[in-house]
Amino acid sequence: MNCEILAVGTELLMGEIVNLDAQIIAQGLNEHGFNVYWETVVGDNPQRLREALETAKRRADILITTGGLGPTADDLTKETVAEVFGRPLKMDRQQLVRLRERVGPKMTPNNEKQAMLPEGCTVLVNDWGTAPGCAFEADGCHVIMLPGPPRECTPMFRQRALPYLEKLCGGVIGSRYVKIFGQGESAVEYLTRPLADSLENVTMAPYAKEGECELRVTARAETKEQALAMCDPVVEQVRAILGDAVYGVDVESLEEVVVNGLKAKGMTVACAESCTGGLIAKRITDISGASEVFGYGCVTYWNEAKRNVLGVKPETIEQYTEVSEQCALEMARGVRKLSGADVGVSTTGYAGPTGGTEEHPVGTVFIGLSWEGGETVFCPERRHTRSREQVRRAAANHAFDLIRREVLEK
Amino acid sequence: MNCEILAVGTELLMGEIVNLDAQIIAQGLNEHGFNVYWETVVGDNPQRLREALETAKRRADILITTGGLGPTADDLTKETVAEVFGRPLKMDRQQLVRLRERVGPKMTPNNEKQAMLPEGCTVLVNDWGTAPGCAFEADGCHVIMLPGPPRECTPMFRQRALPYLEKLCGGVIGSRYVKIFGQGESAVEYLTRPLADSLENVTMAPYAKEGECELRVTARAETKEQALAMCDPVVEQVRAILGDAVYGVDVESLEEVVVNGLKAKGMTVACAESCTGGLIAKRITDISGASEVFGYGCVTYWNEAKRNVLGVKPETIEQYTEVSEQCALEMARGVRKLSGADVGVSTTGYAGPTGGTEEHPVGTVFIGLSWEGGETVFCPERRHTRSREQVRRAAANHAFDLIRREVLEK
Repeated sequence: MNCEILAVGTELLMGEIVNLDAQIIAQGLNEHGFNVYWETVVGDNPQRLREALETAKRRADILITTGGLGPTADDLTKETVAEVFGRPLKMDRQQLVRLRERVGPKMTPNNEKQAMLPEGCTVLVNDWGTAPGCAFEADGCHVIMLPGPPRECTPMFRQRALPYLEKLCGGVIGSRYVKIFGQGESAVEYLTRPLADSLENVTMAPYAKEGECELRVTARAETKEQALAMCDPVVEQVRAILGDAVYGVDVESLEEVVVNGLKAKGMTVACAESCTGGLIAKRITDISGASEVFGYGCVTYWNEAKRNVLGVKPETIEQYTEVSEQCALEMARGVRKLSGADVGVSTTGYAGPTGGTEEHPVGTVFIGLSWEGGETVFCPERRHTRSREQVRRAAANHAFDLIRREVLEK
Repeated sequence: MNCEILAVGTELLMGEIVNLDAQIIAQGLNEHGFNVYWETVVGDNPQRLREALETAKRRADILITTGGLGPTADDLTKETVAEVFGRPLKMDRQQLVRLRERVGPKMTPNNEKQAMLPEGCTVLVNDWGTAPGCAFEADGCHVIMLPGPPRECTPMFRQRALPYLEKLCGGVIGSRYVKIFGQGESAVEYLTRPLADSLENVTMAPYAKEGECELRVTARAETKEQALAMCDPVVEQVRAILGDAVYGVDVESLEEVVVNGLKAKGMTVACAESCTGGLIAKRITDISGASEVFGYGCVTYWNEAKRNVLGVKPETIEQYTEVSEQCALEMARGVRKLSGADVGVSTTGYAGPTGGTEEHPVGTVFIGLSWEGGETVFCPERRHTRSREQVRRAAANHAFDLIRREVLEK
């Protein structure tokens, strides 16, 4: 079945926002075996919207629209779809009650428009905002309308639209996401290609993510459980090929793996950051419940702070400078001592764009680790093209990865 | 003149990447007074690409394509444009020489394709990658072709395509960006509407950004300097209307204003973070050269850390809990004392999604400030709908804004 995505909203044509909805929907459709052939954006203009709908009706089996379901006069999607597909709108009493509950006693009359839905449609209940979505079939084309804001569109697509579409084609999809750090997308593709080519009912696709890589393993079966059971042996084969570059399956991020891994071991971590300037602490505390494993973080941007707060020896800095293995190690030891944490991790380096020395140019970072079992320093390979932001992100990634490899998996 | 953006690339339809090019181009076109009516995405498929080009040719004055200019067989944009617009491709000797220099001695023959350009076109030299862009007019439609990767497309659009377009319509655009914190987009629009309506040769448009608002003031004139000179009195009128909600003009962010403001005054800042967990330090050190004003940051996630590192009194926490004005103030004082900085700023609160008390539910944050001139605590208005990430970002924004108002502008 061929699909078309139509995003409606002048804010997209003004360049005020990026079309994230289209990416999320396209990704989900492809994962579920639907082909996306066209994506279009039109503004809140009835004539052009009609033109876009008529074109899509002619060429698509499935049309997914985003945006234009709200309460204002600008919101025209349902009205225009109703016209083009010959499905007049009708007040949905149940949705009106829901809407009143959600908006509260001050609801203005124009809000009621959101409960007007095409006759005989499947209502896609919106638990993330006020405007319900809907789906129906007309003249051989399935139309699905979703709200525009990505925080509503994303769950509405995944939890409402995809199950509707799965019913159409029989069977459901199950996917495992293998998360990889330390191997690029092309290396992952190269290494796993023979396995991918040997598979019959399971597909595999690598994606480059920020500083890491994700390998999606997907199968179709009658139930999700059956599909996942088909994926699992393939995931094990991938693990065998990629070794400890695989940091998790169906997890969000390196920091999540570190926080949960420490939690499971009843251990705590403290960090001492120079070049990452708080990024490691920030990423740990992005995770709700991080306080179980994390209590202390020090941003020691100045050498004075490294000495006063962490107890780095003045001689160490004099002899080796602050960007050195020695300093990284003393920082990690220092924060562990200060906090009493089981693990101390540190960063010191030149994030750029200015600074650096001949021996240690911009991009050089030392990551220190101190724990009961020992201590180590890691200096990630420097990449010339990296921006300040990329150097800092990579350093934080490597810090988390070091904890995973040395403390959690050994 | 009405514009259409056509992005070519299967990776977009697969949802592997977001269509950032379209946003950047749409934003630039709108700022320069061009209307964007349609955005389309097609894959690397000659038939659908032809259909998209024929449609655009029929309805657009200006068509901008992105992607499909590379060396592989998948890259079809130039070939298909040549066909649809009747402009056969010809080897451009100068671009071929350039290409050979850029790619080096190992250049494979398929690379030469990138120097094939439509007869009589204006070459848009690519200083950021290998594939040159180009522009020409045919049958009343201006066609501009740009490479796909955003790191090439963005500068190619701004530095090559926009000057070409400016020549078409005479005059250039100059814009000032008024940055606003503490007033939402709709309030800013409401308050500045009378001014906007009274203007003749200057336009104004507010944009909602993450937790803040930006007002773009734009004029067209013969030179950029003249255009900016027309904007400046309007910016002053905006300042008069919005008062100190305006935190800067043509600046990037609140943290940039704080870092540069402290630099100008020869002052330093240190931070003590609980609920923001390192975000304030991270945002300060995002700015290259922050080390002039920032040396110490403490992430005191546990009460033990607040006591041990910052010297918060146990009685304070016992009596008022750690989420209190009193604790915020002691944290700010403590980090100032520890670091010797001129300004100490602190955060303590419930970022959510769990935690909080009846008196101080999730989303409550206290921001403490201590400096030579005095001390204060600020508790931003709590919003029900905020996620953990939003609560943390808003708290950091308010911390920077508090420094600006109390220390820099007083």
